[in-house]
Amino acid sequence: MRTAAEYRESLKSMRPNIYMSGEILGRENLPGTDIMELTYELAHSKEIQHLTTAKSHLTGETINRFCHIHQSPEDLMAKQEMTRLSCRLVGGCIARCMGIDAMNALSVITYQCDQVHGTEYHQRWLEYLKYWQANDIVGCCAQSDVKGHRKRRPHEQKDPDLYLRVIEKKKDGIVVRGAKAHNSFAPLAHEIIAIPTRFLTPEEGPWAVAFAVPGDHPGVKLVCRGARYRDRVPEVASPLSGKGEIESLTIFDDVFVPWERVFLCGETEFGGQLALLFSLYHRHSYTGCKPAMSDVIMGTTALVAEYNGIERESHVRHHLAELISVAELVYGCGIAAAVKSSKAPCGTQIPDVVFCNVARKHAGVNLYHEYDILAEVAGGLPATLPYSEEFTSPE
Amino acid sequence: MRTAAEYRESLKSMRPNIYMSGEILGRENLPGTDIMELTYELAHSKEIQHLTTAKSHLTGETINRFCHIHQSPEDLMAKQEMTRLSCRLVGGCIARCMGIDAMNALSVITYQCDQVHGTEYHQRWLEYLKYWQANDIVGCCAQSDVKGHRKRRPHEQKDPDLYLRVIEKKKDGIVVRGAKAHNSFAPLAHEIIAIPTRFLTPEEGPWAVAFAVPGDHPGVKLVCRGARYRDRVPEVASPLSGKGEIESLTIFDDVFVPWERVFLCGETEFGGQLALLFSLYHRHSYTGCKPAMSDVIMGTTALVAEYNGIERESHVRHHLAELISVAELVYGCGIAAAVKSSKAPCGTQIPDVVFCNVARKHAGVNLYHEYDILAEVAGGLPATLPYSEEFTSPE
Amino acid sequence: MRTAAEYRESLKSMRPNIYMSGEILGRENLPGTDIMELTYELAHSKEIQHLTTAKSHLTGETINRFCHIHQSPEDLMAKQEMTRLSCRLVGGCIARCMGIDAMNALSVITYQCDQVHGTEYHQRWLEYLKYWQANDIVGCCAQSDVKGHRKRRPHEQKDPDLYLRVIEKKKDGIVVRGAKAHNSFAPLAHEIIAIPTRFLTPEEGPWAVAFAVPGDHPGVKLVCRGARYRDRVPEVASPLSGKGEIESLTIFDDVFVPWERVFLCGETEFGGQLALLFSLYHRHSYTGCKPAMSDVIMGTTALVAEYNGIERESHVRHHLAELISVAELVYGCGIAAAVKSSKAPCGTQIPDVVFCNVARKHAGVNLYHEYDILAEVAGGLPATLPYSEEFTSPE
Amino acid sequence: MRTAAEYRESLKSMRPNIYMSGEILGRENLPGTDIMELTYELAHSKEIQHLTTAKSHLTGETINRFCHIHQSPEDLMAKQEMTRLSCRLVGGCIARCMGIDAMNALSVITYQCDQVHGTEYHQRWLEYLKYWQANDIVGCCAQSDVKGHRKRRPHEQKDPDLYLRVIEKKKDGIVVRGAKAHNSFAPLAHEIIAIPTRFLTPEEGPWAVAFAVPGDHPGVKLVCRGARYRDRVPEVASPLSGKGEIESLTIFDDVFVPWERVFLCGETEFGGQLALLFSLYHRHSYTGCKPAMSDVIMGTTALVAEYNGIERESHVRHHLAELISVAELVYGCGIAAAVKSSKAPCGTQIPDVVFCNVARKHAGVNLYHEYDILAEVAGGLPATLPYSEEFTSPE
Ligand SMILES: Cc1cc2nc3c(=O)[nH]c(=O)nc-3n(C[C@H](O)[C@H](O)[C@H](O)COP(=O)(O)OP(=O)(O)OC[C@H]3O[C@@H](n4cnc5c(N)ncnc54)[C@H](O)[C@@H]3O)c2cc1C
Ligand SMILES: Cc1cc2nc3c(=O)[nH]c(=O)nc-3n(C[C@H](O)[C@H](O)[C@H](O)COP(=O)(O)OP(=O)(O)OC[C@H]3O[C@@H](n4cnc5c(N)ncnc54)[C@H](O)[C@@H]3O)c2cc1C
Ligand SMILES: Cc1cc2nc3c(=O)[nH]c(=O)nc-3n(C[C@H](O)[C@H](O)[C@H](O)COP(=O)(O)OP(=O)(O)OC[C@H]3O[C@@H](n4cnc5c(N)ncnc54)[C@H](O)[C@@H]3O)c2cc1C
Ligand SMILES: Cc1cc2nc3c(=O)[nH]c(=O)nc-3n(C[C@H](O)[C@H](O)[C@H](O)COP(=O)(O)OP(=O)(O)OC[C@H]3O[C@@H](n4cnc5c(N)ncnc54)[C@H](O)[C@@H]3O)c2cc1C
Repeated sequence: MRTAAEYRESLKSMRPNIYMSGEILGRENLPGTDIMELTYELAHSKEIQHLTTAKSHLTGETINRFCHIHQSPEDLMAKQEMTRLSCRLVGGCIARCMGIDAMNALSVITYQCDQVHGTEYHQRWLEYLKYWQANDIVGCCAQSDVKGHRKRRPHEQKDPDLYLRVIEKKKDGIVVRGAKAHNSFAPLAHEIIAIPTRFLTPEEGPWAVAFAVPGDHPGVKLVCRGARYRDRVPEVASPLSGKGEIESLTIFDDVFVPWERVFLCGETEFGGQLALLFSLYHRHSYTGCKPAMSDVIMGTTALVAEYNGIERESHVRHHLAELISVAELVYGCGIAAAVKSSKAPCGTQIPDVVFCNVARKHAGVNLYHEYDILAEVAGGLPATLPYSEEFTSPE
Repeated sequence: MRTAAEYRESLKSMRPNIYMSGEILGRENLPGTDIMELTYELAHSKEIQHLTTAKSHLTGETINRFCHIHQSPEDLMAKQEMTRLSCRLVGGCIARCMGIDAMNALSVITYQCDQVHGTEYHQRWLEYLKYWQANDIVGCCAQSDVKGHRKRRPHEQKDPDLYLRVIEKKKDGIVVRGAKAHNSFAPLAHEIIAIPTRFLTPEEGPWAVAFAVPGDHPGVKLVCRGARYRDRVPEVASPLSGKGEIESLTIFDDVFVPWERVFLCGETEFGGQLALLFSLYHRHSYTGCKPAMSDVIMGTTALVAEYNGIERESHVRHHLAELISVAELVYGCGIAAAVKSSKAPCGTQIPDVVFCNVARKHAGVNLYHEYDILAEVAGGLPATLPYSEEFTSPE
Repeated sequence: MRTAAEYRESLKSMRPNIYMSGEILGRENLPGTDIMELTYELAHSKEIQHLTTAKSHLTGETINRFCHIHQSPEDLMAKQEMTRLSCRLVGGCIARCMGIDAMNALSVITYQCDQVHGTEYHQRWLEYLKYWQANDIVGCCAQSDVKGHRKRRPHEQKDPDLYLRVIEKKKDGIVVRGAKAHNSFAPLAHEIIAIPTRFLTPEEGPWAVAFAVPGDHPGVKLVCRGARYRDRVPEVASPLSGKGEIESLTIFDDVFVPWERVFLCGETEFGGQLALLFSLYHRHSYTGCKPAMSDVIMGTTALVAEYNGIERESHVRHHLAELISVAELVYGCGIAAAVKSSKAPCGTQIPDVVFCNVARKHAGVNLYHEYDILAEVAGGLPATLPYSEEFTSPE
Repeated sequence: MRTAAEYRESLKSMRPNIYMSGEILGRENLPGTDIMELTYELAHSKEIQHLTTAKSHLTGETINRFCHIHQSPEDLMAKQEMTRLSCRLVGGCIARCMGIDAMNALSVITYQCDQVHGTEYHQRWLEYLKYWQANDIVGCCAQSDVKGHRKRRPHEQKDPDLYLRVIEKKKDGIVVRGAKAHNSFAPLAHEIIAIPTRFLTPEEGPWAVAFAVPGDHPGVKLVCRGARYRDRVPEVASPLSGKGEIESLTIFDDVFVPWERVFLCGETEFGGQLALLFSLYHRHSYTGCKPAMSDVIMGTTALVAEYNGIERESHVRHHLAELISVAELVYGCGIAAAVKSSKAPCGTQIPDVVFCNVARKHAGVNLYHEYDILAEVAGGLPATLPYSEEFTSPE
């Protein structure tokens, strides 16, 4: 397992292809780097290594759990608990689920596709997984296409590139064109895993494509938007200071992908299944991170209530109960999804669909409601508090 | 294990003390009898005996799960699954949880009280449990006191009998006075288990009392309200026809209880713990029955939607997703409560408090919302449909 | 203006055609009669005659406001206030809006149809209105068709009679066939006003029909469902005791309607407009009755809270504020609908569409929520309280 | 009436006492200036002068409605309509209600206080109003105290200055000390109107104080937080570009106020009434601005829906209906509050309390829900869209 320092070092050698604030940047000092580093640090922390590491089912070696393919209900529960814990420390998204969620989905679908079509995707993917685990890789998932008119199918769009597609098959690989939107933390990933975004009809073969390329691969451009939580002056700095997040619109400008990194190419029925299965794994990850977000809001709410001297008021306690309720309903269903999970033919453990979906739905419905609660308990303070320079002004 | 017929027979021999519709009745033909019988029938059904029966941890014999003290997470999950399944068949409350939930709570509290106070409650209760399991007993739980002014404690009420209490201790037993309200299905129970309803202060010894008496014990009167679902004329009868429910205000008119049936008497701190622990077991039962209720509403909604030709409309599918969501969030947290359960010193398995509470809260919050959905999908039909006589009228 | 006694007398002479409980009944002693009588009594009550009566714009005479065609914003506001007040007294629906709402809609649409098609509906309708006002008529509105498959239009249904239609035009009138569902208080009405239920396409002429017939007209059958609020024994009777409600599925078994009572016949575009305009008037009436329902729930909630000694608790006050909020948002928008109302070419005042719609929507959304509140404040009492016989039992 | 240019000019002459970003600034180029200027421009716009101007009841001259004391229900409705219209143009808060809402409240309370205590506040205030109207003054309202521990009363706080108070009464005036928080747009106001924030007990005379001082009065310091909506590069600029908002924590560092500008000083019972009455006027203003906010969200939602090609989907139309519903329920109750308003003894028109309160409550409850809707219809776009520099990048 790599260290945080090694991770940071590995970013330096990558080709600058980050388009942000009108410049083309390399990967040093991007917002969110601290967060990704934390995922390396936690794997070395004795107290929680039972959560943050796993034994590779390929090699038997101890690996970072963010590189692991789930083999049992216990693996799913450990993943969920690790996620809640890490997200709490960060006070937000832990940034490293997307890639491994996509890898888990690929493990299942490549195997099934091979059974039906006699393809060799699973073996290729296993080789690629070895590379991941050996190098403690960070991946991102490029799924969401730009889409255009939502009522038209990919092949019905005026511009066929609104969904990423194969424009040429060559002897040694394929050429892809298009763009994927909203790719969280993509500029901080070594690898980009691209998969389809929706069900595909038989005539949509070119859009049924899944593959992996390095983040700085020729032809790949990451148009980014970054946010750093407002820095405070040192006197009143908090653990969150300097943290941040970053997303990318990832452009594939006629990118060549060698066959050994192609995991689906034309088998349309598996395109949709892959999209769904990634979502399923991601929803299960969500049962870990969403409760952590509620935990943070809850903590802030409780702190503000104390500051206002109203921590024992019945309406405040009622609000806190609401927050606990949202968090634990979601977390509980994540556990249930693990208990009721099933084993795919390739050996990967798949969480229960229904419990993942209701958890995701419940979390989504309540997100704004939670900010509402925080706002109500806090009063006008957060909206109008002067920034920290004024607090330390000599006057 | 008894059969349904034996259960029905056993009710006949009980002393008539049911006050309903201005009469004093025996226990034949009370609303809800069919439901209780079902709990006996299901224990003999081959396909689901793995759920509806258990192995007694006392005797090793196979018993009805409604007489079992949970020994493992698996027991809790089986109880939950049995409950959902039975309630679906009934289309409502399965009527037999309350007693066994109280028994589970007593198993834990009697043991703990003995440790602290050197009392002998647990041994007494074990003997009583043997009687239960040998006779396949139906119990009800008499917890809710009449209460009066909610802001006053039991000993502050103008009338000290607003909470059930001990008025005399004798050599061979105690005398209790008061009444318990809303006792579900009490007239169909062989035994009444009485426990405190809330936390008690040190000066409230007389109110810290738990015991069991037969339903027709001298001095016990059950003032009842019954409801039978509207009978249909035979031409259009449904499985629900003839089913019903019944509750009792149970009056204890200076009732004598022998010591071997007294499980708490004056140890105030355990009064509150017993109240809470019963609630906890009952909330866990609720994670089984509540989803079943949602299932029934869901089925009815889907049926009505089909009848109206709108089963594929997006708003109807959205509503069904809502109902599934409520049901499975609650059910999922019941599973999580079992997974995260703990073992009490006496060996009984205790479900996790937080998961039980959020499930209960969520189910409660959404109850009326679910009827709302059914009403919206159905339109004006259910509110104004003439009863079945008009359908079969000759004209 | 008639008295309540005269009204009751007038029902006696009507032909028995009420099908209920397997019998064919006359109009004596039907559930809901007291409510309808109240609408006559209130018109004679000095303190509120400014609300319950109006000056006929046809004859200048003082009439019951339930027979009045609105001429100004003030009329609309008076109607709304009268409705809230009467519904509060009844503790439910005041039962007499539907007919007059339909009459107001007819006043506008008959006039507009005449302008476009050169028909004579408005003059006919004016004659009919004189009869109404002279005889202080109670009308009901038969709008909702049975409908069958909701995704098919009237003329696409397998059975063309699922929507009421004209099957023959004669020299002296028309013959109609079909049925209208959910007709509130129809058995207590002298007159039935039938109007279309939805937009109609040009090929749906036979379904574009509006007319009035006496409730006991040949060929008209009222299949009814009645409910009387549970009678209490005299010792604990309340003002609500003995009140009730009744709805009818009104069957038109090839009914002949003379031309002077036909107000639309084939002009399809006005069929839809009439349906919408009735709904609009009815929604405005709703801004009066719905707040009254909230008032009643509010009163009950407050009473129960007091009984429980919790009337000053913050959660109870919060709940009461919720109830006030629902009631007054709806009522306020009714006022706004009057302020922003417009005058139709025939002189009738039309409330604002947007304010009526948002009020109706808000009331509907909150209905179940209100029962929820009552239930929460009351605790288990209302669900399990034994009926009054038990209270007065000698024991 | 002044012009926008004159207003801007008037700010230049004021003493720099704005503490922001670690500097002490004057009033040029503060965020929000454009918005305030708009309130001057609209008063000169022919089409809407019937809304944006009024006739002074003191002088009979035409004045900006933001300087007017309401004399009739029509005045209240015009204020409400002007507010909705202006806020729509700004896409946010119109910034000039607070001062005039406070002035309306002072008109009523000064008069009533004089009746009871024989004071001369009303006359003083009338003189001050003349100055306002003659100079087309912008005022802000400094009401919210810092408060500290919420469960302690002003005189119970450890630090007596947590609520603004009188520390000295002199022959020619008073000296006040304390701070007021969250003062919207205070740095853009000519005048600061200070009033109490809550009910006061008889021993809290020093805190029962209301007065007016110029924004740059000696001893007054405005510690500010400003926000400018993100500027876009000129190619894709929108009407909102460059707009902004600003709030101030206003410190009164032993400020001297001459008697002619003191409107309450020690009459504790009127302190609470003044606080409530300002809130009432402000809630009525809210019935104008809140619907405008919903209008803006609605427009954005509709635009995004169109861009996504889903503007005719039933869920999108349902969402838009939700937004309309929130807006118009609030707006409708504002109208009702004017219709049911009453005239104070001094002649000022007071909106109805209940309708203002339910409107405010409803708007508050739904705020986050509205953002939720926008987010759902928009999908991931708003959260991750790169800023405008990337759109116009040469590549
Ligand atoms: C913070 C954040 C991080 C993200 N991270 C990633 C990431 O790492 N990788 C990645 O691939 N994606 C990521 N996403 C994207 C996310 O997966 C998408 O936002 C989500 O799938 C919705 O897609 P969309 O934004 O295109 O909206 P859409 O799904 O297009 O929805 C927009 C609206 O259109 C409607 N609509 C869509 N299709 C239809 C139709 N056929 N008929 C009728 N109505 C329709 C929807 O109901 C909705 O109202 C992220 C998003 C966010 C907000
Ligand atoms: C269908 C049904 C079946 C039931 N079956 C059983 C059964 O089998 N056995 C049994 O024992 N019970 C049973 N119950 C009773 C149930 O447990 C109680 O209804 C529940 O505990 C609430 O008690 P309560 O009705 O006395 O209401 P309360 O708890 O008294 O609540 C009424 C109101 O008072 C408020 N309140 C109460 N105390 C305070 C306080 N100290 N301060 C401020 N506010 C307060 C509450 O918030 C609430 O608004 C059943 C109830 C129902 C509805
Ligand atoms: C207490 C009460 C009193 C009433 N009093 C009267 C009265 O006096 N006179 C009178 O005429 N009526 C009366 N009604 C009837 C009332 O007007 C209707 O119930 C109402 O208009 C709804 O019609 P519906 O019941 O046929 O349901 P529908 O409108 O048919 O709705 C049922 C379901 O079908 C869906 N649906 C309907 N059409 C479509 C479609 N085309 N596409 C997709 N989905 C669709 C709806 O969304 C809903 O989910 C009363 C109703 C009640 C409850
Ligand atoms: C955008 C914005 C603009 C504003 N503009 C102005 C302005 O121009 N002028 C101005 O004067 N103000 C302004 N305000 C301030 C606004 O009026 C206050 O925020 C509001 O009155 C609430 O006061 P607070 O923030 O002190 O919160 P509080 O009212 O103190 O509420 C914080 C929490 O404490 C609780 N609480 C408070 N008191 C008690 C108690 N006694 N017992 C139990 N619980 C209690 C509340 O329920 C809440 O949960 C503005 C606010 C905002 C957000």
